[in-house]
Amino acid sequence: MCPLVSFTCLPVVQGESNAMDNVATERLAEESHRQDSANLLIFIMLLTLTILTIWLFKHRRFRFLHETGLAMIYGVLVGVILRFGVHVPQSMSDVILGCAVNASPATLLVNVSGRFYEYTLKGEVSRGKGHQVQDDEMLRKVTFDPEVFFNILLPPIIFHAGYSLKRRHFFRNIGSILAYAFMGTVISCFVIGLVMYGVVSFMKVVGQLGGDFYFTDCLFFGAIVSATDPVTLLAIFNDLQVDVDLYALLFGESVLNDAVAIVLSSSIVAYQPAGDNSHSFEALAMLKSFGVFLGVFSGSFALGVATGFMTFTKLRDFPLLETALFFLMSWSTFLLAEACGFTGVVAVLFCGITQAHYTFNNLSPDSQDRTKQLFELLNFLAENFIFSYMGLTLFSFQSHVFNPMFIVGAFVAVFLGRAANIYPLSFLLNLGRKNKIGSNFQHVMMFAGLRGAMTFALSIRDTATYARQMMFSTTLLIVFFTVWICGGGTTPMLSFMSIPVGVDSDQDNSVTVLDGSQRRNTKHESAWPFRIWYNFDHNYLKPLLTHSGPPLTATMPTCCGPLARCLTSPQAYENEGRLHDDDSDFILNDASVSSMYADITVSMDASGRTINCSSSTRASDEGLDHELALAEHEVAIRGTRLVLHNSSHLISQENGIC
Amino acid sequence: MCPLVSFTCLPVVQGESNAMDNVATERLAEESHRQDSANLLIFIMLLTLTILTIWLFKHRRFRFLHETGLAMIYGVLVGVILRFGVHVPQSMSDVILGCAVNASPATLLVNVSGRFYEYTLKGEVSRGKGHQVQDDEMLRKVTFDPEVFFNILLPPIIFHAGYSLKRRHFFRNIGSILAYAFMGTVISCFVIGLVMYGVVSFMKVVGQLGGDFYFTDCLFFGAIVSATDPVTLLAIFNDLQVDVDLYALLFGESVLNDAVAIVLSSSIVAYQPAGDNSHSFEALAMLKSFGVFLGVFSGSFALGVATGFMTFTKLRDFPLLETALFFLMSWSTFLLAEACGFTGVVAVLFCGITQAHYTFNNLSPDSQDRTKQLFELLNFLAENFIFSYMGLTLFSFQSHVFNPMFIVGAFVAVFLGRAANIYPLSFLLNLGRKNKIGSNFQHVMMFAGLRGAMTFALSIRDTATYARQMMFSTTLLIVFFTVWICGGGTTPMLSFMSIPVGVDSDQDNSVTVLDGSQRRNTKHESAWPFRIWYNFDHNYLKPLLTHSGPPLTATMPTCCGPLARCLTSPQAYENEGRLHDDDSDFILNDASVSSMYADITVSMDASGRTINCSSSTRASDEGLDHELALAEHEVAIRGTRLVLHNSSHLISQENGIC
Repeated sequence: MCPLVSFTCLPVVQGESNAMDNVATERLAEESHRQDSANLLIFIMLLTLTILTIWLFKHRRFRFLHETGLAMIYGVLVGVILRFGVHVPQSMSDVILGCAVNASPATLLVNVSGRFYEYTLKGEVSRGKGHQVQDDEMLRKVTFDPEVFFNILLPPIIFHAGYSLKRRHFFRNIGSILAYAFMGTVISCFVIGLVMYGVVSFMKVVGQLGGDFYFTDCLFFGAIVSATDPVTLLAIFNDLQVDVDLYALLFGESVLNDAVAIVLSSSIVAYQPAGDNSHSFEALAMLKSFGVFLGVFSGSFALGVATGFMTFTKLRDFPLLETALFFLMSWSTFLLAEACGFTGVVAVLFCGITQAHYTFNNLSPDSQDRTKQLFELLNFLAENFIFSYMGLTLFSFQSHVFNPMFIVGAFVAVFLGRAANIYPLSFLLNLGRKNKIGSNFQHVMMFAGLRGAMTFALSIRDTATYARQMMFSTTLLIVFFTVWICGGGTTPMLSFMSIPVGVDSDQDNSVTVLDGSQRRNTKHESAWPFRIWYNFDHNYLKPLLTHSGPPLTATMPTCCGPLARCLTSPQAYENEGRLHDDDSDFILNDASVSSMYADITVSMDASGRTINCSSSTRASDEGLDHELALAEHEVAIRGTRLVLHNSSHLISQENGIC
Repeated sequence: MCPLVSFTCLPVVQGESNAMDNVATERLAEESHRQDSANLLIFIMLLTLTILTIWLFKHRRFRFLHETGLAMIYGVLVGVILRFGVHVPQSMSDVILGCAVNASPATLLVNVSGRFYEYTLKGEVSRGKGHQVQDDEMLRKVTFDPEVFFNILLPPIIFHAGYSLKRRHFFRNIGSILAYAFMGTVISCFVIGLVMYGVVSFMKVVGQLGGDFYFTDCLFFGAIVSATDPVTLLAIFNDLQVDVDLYALLFGESVLNDAVAIVLSSSIVAYQPAGDNSHSFEALAMLKSFGVFLGVFSGSFALGVATGFMTFTKLRDFPLLETALFFLMSWSTFLLAEACGFTGVVAVLFCGITQAHYTFNNLSPDSQDRTKQLFELLNFLAENFIFSYMGLTLFSFQSHVFNPMFIVGAFVAVFLGRAANIYPLSFLLNLGRKNKIGSNFQHVMMFAGLRGAMTFALSIRDTATYARQMMFSTTLLIVFFTVWICGGGTTPMLSFMSIPVGVDSDQDNSVTVLDGSQRRNTKHESAWPFRIWYNFDHNYLKPLLTHSGPPLTATMPTCCGPLARCLTSPQAYENEGRLHDDDSDFILNDASVSSMYADITVSMDASGRTINCSSSTRASDEGLDHELALAEHEVAIRGTRLVLHNSSHLISQENGIC
């Protein structure tokens, strides 16, 4: 192992042989590199093991434990082994002298016998432990730089969530989702913050608190544990095939509140050191913090959407180049946002949604597959890595502060915060919604508020102070509890709440359509501001940014004729015939509902085989929401059995061919 | 920018506010993170620009400059801008005090007013410049840790080279390829080393040498510039469709000599500091070095092949899991080799070859596509990144030592080294080969010895001493020259040497077959040790490790019946009928040559449509070498026009369906 030398200010024998120095340094570097490889190998092996077990579970249709829970268990096991099984003591000369500098620069240049070595700042080492700095080399080595989570592992997960969002149901419930995600998360954050402040104040009185814990710390804790996790949820609900609206509400909320939580927590951090050390509540600073929140959020949003718009590719003939470009553009969104001081993760989320909506239509069919598969793989690896790392840190992290009172308080606070989010908001939303959110749905939403990767990443980002260490340990327990207990208990919970599982989204829809009235609710639900935007999008943005949709010449006022002609791509004219079915999976207004029924059956028979293979709107829009679109078709054709058979036959053929 | 503070040993005012410290540190870290993002963004933009230009070039069928050359040009441009356009001076308090430690540990703990900060060693800073340490923050920032190349960028490139190797032609010419790659590279290394030693000695006499330059340095230089690059070559020759044997020789040599060069150079480094400072030639140490070479090479080889064998997947129903597992296994080969002290890159190369030969057959068709596309993308990105970074370092690297005499000497040495590799070896090989390597082929092989990513990565790995800096600068020029001049001049060179380009591999083969005698040459060329191995592989290894090939029950002696039965997978029995065409694209012995002719035409008509879609041997083996396999079929069927049309129709249909 490489020695961790506490910096000593000793004069040095200058006459040493340079060559010997060189050799020693090289050996040291080689040894260190070897150990790094071995440590990374541990994680790779963990992932491999997880994959094999997942396969076994899927193979045997064993559904009690989700793969993320599994990854965590393996992580815990390896953590235990590393903690208690292997002990690699450090060969360090523990001489801490008073040789202190007056700042901790990011880069340090050290003069060793006339040669300069560059050192980069890795972070602060646990202060509380003072002299007995982390004594186990192995454990120290398997600890990653927290920035790795934010800059490498989270972006693909969040991008994939945006890119694979089932936009139809998402946009149908957009109002409710936004309410839960924005207002709900803020409510939850403040409720948890206030409860925790009470707990902490009580602990101070009782004398259970071993360090400072300010009100802003409580709010920060509230922000990080308010982010519910889309990963585990998505997988469980997808397997179970629950009600599509419930799915959309939960998934939409949990994707967006990750974004809200990340911006909220950074606003609180920006608010925290407001010049002085007060850490108390100030109206003005609070307002400023709110301004930061709005600025960062809208900035990140704008940037993500702008890059999504910009990725306007004409490289259809070269799928490799196209995929590479797509990947690079998505990544550069993240980097650009970070470089501008916005939040990369939020930008990447909206970039993903925009790209799925516009760019995806421009890609060649080959690239559509490639990008989906690529991000699916990246997401899968990143997600399992995070969860197994989570398990590992339970034992490998050396500055845990487990305070029973704080932990109990936190569990209560999280429960209350979630309740204060779901129930009042659902009540308010139900006043406006025709398609009410039933109380059983509300209970499930309450129960299914799992905490996952984002909460972990936010809490591990800074574990320097006592307060943050306590938060981190508690957060870890909350994540474990929710993933194992709530995740595993979802199936019983659903049956207890008499929410039908195994509902094919077809059947669910067919019920909606057959009585006909609920369709209108859907229409009402997508309120007027959204309908205006939808029309604008359908008539102008889509034709402008993609090869699909109606040509601009048809939608723009006649006075703009020449402009429209030069902006319309040649392919767009070909689509003119099939306008209505294009966005049928997206939103329905009165006109399209009726016309659609007639339209689809015809176009299915008429254009037949080539629908999916061509680059037409239809095919591309179907890409992501394929099963849902299929459902829609089947519904529309329900009257005639013959046509139904015909079309499903066609579709399966098309799938086979493409 | 973050200040680069030369470490100062000042006593510190301890009474400072901790909170203020915290804020300052956080701001600093944030600023640093922001700049890192901006720098990475530069590279992403560079890559994006390269992709767009490549597309333009491909679109306009402009073939003069290869994409790697293009990436380099963009890199140079950005390097010039960063060097001369932007100047970000450092805000550093340049007080270098005598506070020196007596070692340069990998980790440093610095005590700043009672708080401990951890620093990690980044590397040595150019010694020659002493006090005026790199003065441009921006340039310092865009410089990557050289290990990034070895641990992140090279593995996917090398793995892809192995995985996409056209095994049929490779194995047909295996003897010659091994001769060029092993003996040739060693010859080249020593010729270049000796010539350079002459040049350096002369420079020392003339007084042109500004530092130490030992004989081992010369040999090291010889090793690193002996690695020819498969990337550029592969692309150019693939586009031009030159003679398959020439292609196989060049590609096989350049893939394998990367492996040889990397092990050779590390053996030389291991030999270099042989306890004392002599740096002179010693027979015993030399022998030891040779031992190290053999040990490391065979160890890496064994490890790579072993992991290739081990990746034995039954996850066919879950392509995502399968692809993830495949990816992780390949990566863990690299890490395992590094952790064991072997060479990860070499292990990954053989792992790729083995996996293409065995594992690929076990993958589901979906995973076969996914893995190919994934590694294609990774390879593309990594390769373009390396080449644009190469361009960038020409101006951004701050310790260049351009010595005209050394540079001229190096170019001459490289030329002589290549000549001493190709011409004598070709002469010797031609004594044994029936299918002679013509003198025009030899000239092209001489000319097409491009240097690329591996040479660069090896030379940037260590740029601490004067000798290494001079090597690095010279290497950079050699890479630029060969990629631009030799790469761009390949097309004129081929036509000058009257080597037909645009040869469809079909026609080339048909000539070979029609006169019939050359087939036998091919057979003779794959000499007896190889034939034995081939039979062993075909009869035992393939059936054991994959679902393809004949069942073991048919190939093993009858006494091993029960064992054979339990080792044979159920699918293997299905393949029993079509044994001969299975490996037809791999090697030909007398029996199979004749039987193949009859066999293929029949099986084409009989099994018809399902051949490619099923997971049979045929389909999987065809995967990688598809166009070559097609050629073979067409050749076999050449007698009957009707069948030919029929089969090509079938094949195109199959391609459409799968």
